Amino acid sequence: MLSMTWDRDAFSADNCSVARTLQVVGERWTMLVLREAFYGVRRFDDIQRGTGAPRNVLTERLKTLVHHGLLERVPYQEPGVRRRFEYVLTGRGRELLPALVALMQWGDRHLADPDGPPVVLRHRDCGALVHAVLACDAGHTRLTARDTRPELGPGARAASA
Amino acid sequence: MLSMTWDRDAFSADNCSVARTLQVVGERWTMLVLREAFYGVRRFDDIQRGTGAPRNVLTERLKTLVHHGLLERVPYQEPGVRRRFEYVLTGRGRELLPALVALMQWGDRHLADPDGPPVVLRHRDCGALVHAVLACDAGHTRLTARDTRPELGPGARAASA
Repeated sequence: MLSMTWDRDAFSADNCSVARTLQVVGERWTMLVLREAFYGVRRFDDIQRGTGAPRNVLTERLKTLVHHGLLERVPYQEPGVRRRFEYVLTGRGRELLPALVALMQWGDRHLADPDGPPVVLRHRDCGALVHAVLACDAGHTRLTARDTRPELGPGARAASA
Repeated sequence: MLSMTWDRDAFSADNCSVARTLQVVGERWTMLVLREAFYGVRRFDDIQRGTGAPRNVLTERLKTLVHHGLLERVPYQEPGVRRRFEYVLTGRGRELLPALVALMQWGDRHLADPDGPPVVLRHRDCGALVHAVLACDAGHTRLTARDTRPELGPGARAASA
């Protein structure tokens, strides 16, 4: 039985959700492929141009994203050309947007050129700029790291010695 | 001059903030090193045990994170042992927490074992669970991808032909 006191040596990271997510989206190019999907880009050649990923790598990344259910492969056909496939975000894929936006805004803040970020995100309804923030279930928002503390969750496992 | 209409072919991703952030934190192991830093782990051997990263790779990752100002190298000394260094999150490093939490909660939701997530984050003040959410400057919160639209920002550059 794990004590509820926070002791990093006591629990295992074998089932860490950060690590598991990175197993799906942590490879080089994958987040940029998802960026293009959020930009509305659906076709292989367009994703390739938008990301600059080598074609064989892009094929692999798309396969992984489809396999894990973040993108769906949807057939389309233009006159006189054989049937092809578009890659469309699923609900599961769209739920990664906070992560993508959080990465983007860190870059906007710390790595952008003096003229500012190339892309911003707006709330469709009101037009205000959108950010990724930390908020709690009691409605407190824009929390910083210092406002938070990690705690063992229901799936915590004891570290093996 | 770029039109304000969203046209993915018209602008370049050369200065994309997602790509720039991933150049700093997108390599394998780096986010897990930061996870340990947020867990309060500071010493090389402890970070190594917490992540399972090979020692030579961990050395490189820590060097990169210090170089880019996310971690600070702070000397410490225990009796009878030569001076060593701890790795402590800087303000810049702490600002990556929304990204880390967003990746974690996606994994919690889609990849966790049936018993649930191993770690949760709580608001220190009120004890409620903390999540990464999308919120706009007008105060609307828990926005989904469909509530948002990308728009060219002040640093948008025309795509080269």
